[in-house]
Amino acid sequence: MVFHPDLLEIGRRAKQAARQLAFASTESKNNALLAMSEALINNEQDILRANSLDVQAAEEKGLKRSLVNRLSLTSARIAQISQALKDVVALRDPVGEGEVWTRPNGLRIQQTRVPLGVVAMIYEARPNVTVDAAALCLKSGNVVILRGGSEALESNRVLARVIAEAAEDSGLPSGCIQLITETSREWVQQLMRMNDYVDVIIPRGGAGLIQAVVQNATVPVIETGTGMCHAFIDREADYEKAIPIVINAKTQSPGVCNALETMLVDEAIAEDFLPLIGEVLKSHQVELKGCPKTCEILSYAVPAAPEDWVEEHLDLILSVKVVPGLDGALDHIYQYSTKHSETIITENYSRAQRFLREIDAAVVYVNASTRFTDGGRFGFGAEIGISTQKLHARGPMGLRELTTIKYMVYGDGQIV
Amino acid sequence: MVFHPDLLEIGRRAKQAARQLAFASTESKNNALLAMSEALINNEQDILRANSLDVQAAEEKGLKRSLVNRLSLTSARIAQISQALKDVVALRDPVGEGEVWTRPNGLRIQQTRVPLGVVAMIYEARPNVTVDAAALCLKSGNVVILRGGSEALESNRVLARVIAEAAEDSGLPSGCIQLITETSREWVQQLMRMNDYVDVIIPRGGAGLIQAVVQNATVPVIETGTGMCHAFIDREADYEKAIPIVINAKTQSPGVCNALETMLVDEAIAEDFLPLIGEVLKSHQVELKGCPKTCEILSYAVPAAPEDWVEEHLDLILSVKVVPGLDGALDHIYQYSTKHSETIITENYSRAQRFLREIDAAVVYVNASTRFTDGGRFGFGAEIGISTQKLHARGPMGLRELTTIKYMVYGDGQIV
Repeated sequence: MVFHPDLLEIGRRAKQAARQLAFASTESKNNALLAMSEALINNEQDILRANSLDVQAAEEKGLKRSLVNRLSLTSARIAQISQALKDVVALRDPVGEGEVWTRPNGLRIQQTRVPLGVVAMIYEARPNVTVDAAALCLKSGNVVILRGGSEALESNRVLARVIAEAAEDSGLPSGCIQLITETSREWVQQLMRMNDYVDVIIPRGGAGLIQAVVQNATVPVIETGTGMCHAFIDREADYEKAIPIVINAKTQSPGVCNALETMLVDEAIAEDFLPLIGEVLKSHQVELKGCPKTCEILSYAVPAAPEDWVEEHLDLILSVKVVPGLDGALDHIYQYSTKHSETIITENYSRAQRFLREIDAAVVYVNASTRFTDGGRFGFGAEIGISTQKLHARGPMGLRELTTIKYMVYGDGQIV
Repeated sequence: MVFHPDLLEIGRRAKQAARQLAFASTESKNNALLAMSEALINNEQDILRANSLDVQAAEEKGLKRSLVNRLSLTSARIAQISQALKDVVALRDPVGEGEVWTRPNGLRIQQTRVPLGVVAMIYEARPNVTVDAAALCLKSGNVVILRGGSEALESNRVLARVIAEAAEDSGLPSGCIQLITETSREWVQQLMRMNDYVDVIIPRGGAGLIQAVVQNATVPVIETGTGMCHAFIDREADYEKAIPIVINAKTQSPGVCNALETMLVDEAIAEDFLPLIGEVLKSHQVELKGCPKTCEILSYAVPAAPEDWVEEHLDLILSVKVVPGLDGALDHIYQYSTKHSETIITENYSRAQRFLREIDAAVVYVNASTRFTDGGRFGFGAEIGISTQKLHARGPMGLRELTTIKYMVYGDGQIV
């Protein structure tokens, strides 16, 4: 593949910077993060001006209200983003951590965490991701190449310039944070195949974006993602737990990947439980797409179409299916799970354990909301994404998941 | 992509078996390994007969002696392979290991090792890999799809049948071990894109095979392999360590990935050290490809071609370059390293530390032979390959690297 010379130059600068940044001290990285945090506040007017161009263009193009909201920055939002950088300072730097053992021949093998190198982030029109991703990459010693959605281009241009300059002024190598401002599809296609310059690609966004990267990249990818999350209400569920959990998982933030999409109800309690939860869901404006049995019990449920079991609603819509006990739930989840987050509500010990053991997903819950699948809520302090693949990282990814290992071996003349 | 129905059927069986094998007990997996070990001995005659067909065909095709050797089985080789299965029984099963923490809201998060699922191994004509790979995958709870080199097809066919039947007879799900007997390129191409059925592909073999997989797979790949390994002889090297290490790393097994390919010599000691090491290398029949300065000092060195710095010799040939001290060595290695194994020979503390820190490779040594980069020699008990990528696993990969994690979260009604 022939790469555009400007893109190659970005790759070369990134690789050069990575060679230095890999062994920058935690102190120097923290100083850069503080400088970046301050620079955002100092450049608030420039950022707001650029952002208003993006927002205006988005409104003229008739973008959905929710997308325009995600795109919009205010003074308060910028203060939050600036504060988030300070929060990253407080996180423990995983670089240099590790373990050591000594072989019988005296060879001392030290397994040490090191940065991945150059991380490429491909994401949609959320300007805060530009700063968050750069901060987490930098703290873990990684150079970042950012490629955000074109709708946020003007905002990203200013944000990336401000933080990159602050990082460089504080003494980090130039090229640590670079933004691709060319929005053509061709460049993204090339970026995904620059194995000599990019160590990993992390796509963040909708299923379409993620699949495009997985299908076309030769650079290793960490797939983040789509969450077709299920709750199974077992015949021994405690309704006092089941109802709040379902309401929370479905309604607290329906547009996110860890929101509930399908409720599976044990047939033994369907006639009893469905009218109870149905009323509460109705009062929260949740539309129900039911299996035939559900529609029989709840007159206000509409029949589910085949795709209702497959695709995330990302809205106040819940698919509901009556299943013949745990085995039916396991089979349904096996068929439709995107291996993100699944929960069982039960007081039965053995069925809880079977669910935990037999469900293949990043996070499997007993008696808790799927909404906890999040780096912050897991106690990682921050998150670069939620991995739904099995290689390298699974579930919420914090700083540690942005590192790899290197073996340093101390010898004294040993030979084989 | 449209998949061949027989290949799809292999994928379906594998996925079905993986669902069961994931939570098979260590005891049942060990019983299967013992049964497989015994079955190899009991079927020795069938195995030798099939192998002789492969060897005969290879000889008729005029395959290189070293390749025919790798392909050939004897009674003693089969006994070794059978013993290796018993050795895997003794290894600790990583499945189910993990750590746990509790969040302020009482949510208990348990990070637990689980199998990857379905592992596809693509490898060359070494029948022992068929058994070794199957054993390591099985012990770590993974189903394996094997696709070996066509030159070993008859041997692999019998080996795979014998061990798969033994595993199934001992109670493991059918489909745990499957061999692809269709040798067309088209099937491998399809296998690499069966993301719904295969969780990871591990190619083992030459650079051509590995690059073909990396370039074409959409299934996540663990890249193993090519090792363009360097030794830097610093001006403060102890020759008593340097000479044995260079000889060992170059000559003990020149055809393997952790063998030495390039020696870099500090110019401050070049005129002193090169004649000494040159004589010993000559006595070991090692041919030298030198930079101009090396050729000036050693009359028997031939001028190195550009590719001598890039490609593994995998033979009794050593590239030799005189460099202006550590920085020159770091620059050369930065440019040509395949990030496998690199060693510095020095008594100088600060230069040793700089080498360890600044070289980006899976394994970096001080005063030891690069030949130690090996699962067995690292103390892992076995090895499925040596990863030269940064994602998921780096360096020698044992059983642990064949697993991923799953978060099991114990709640009591928690909501966000």
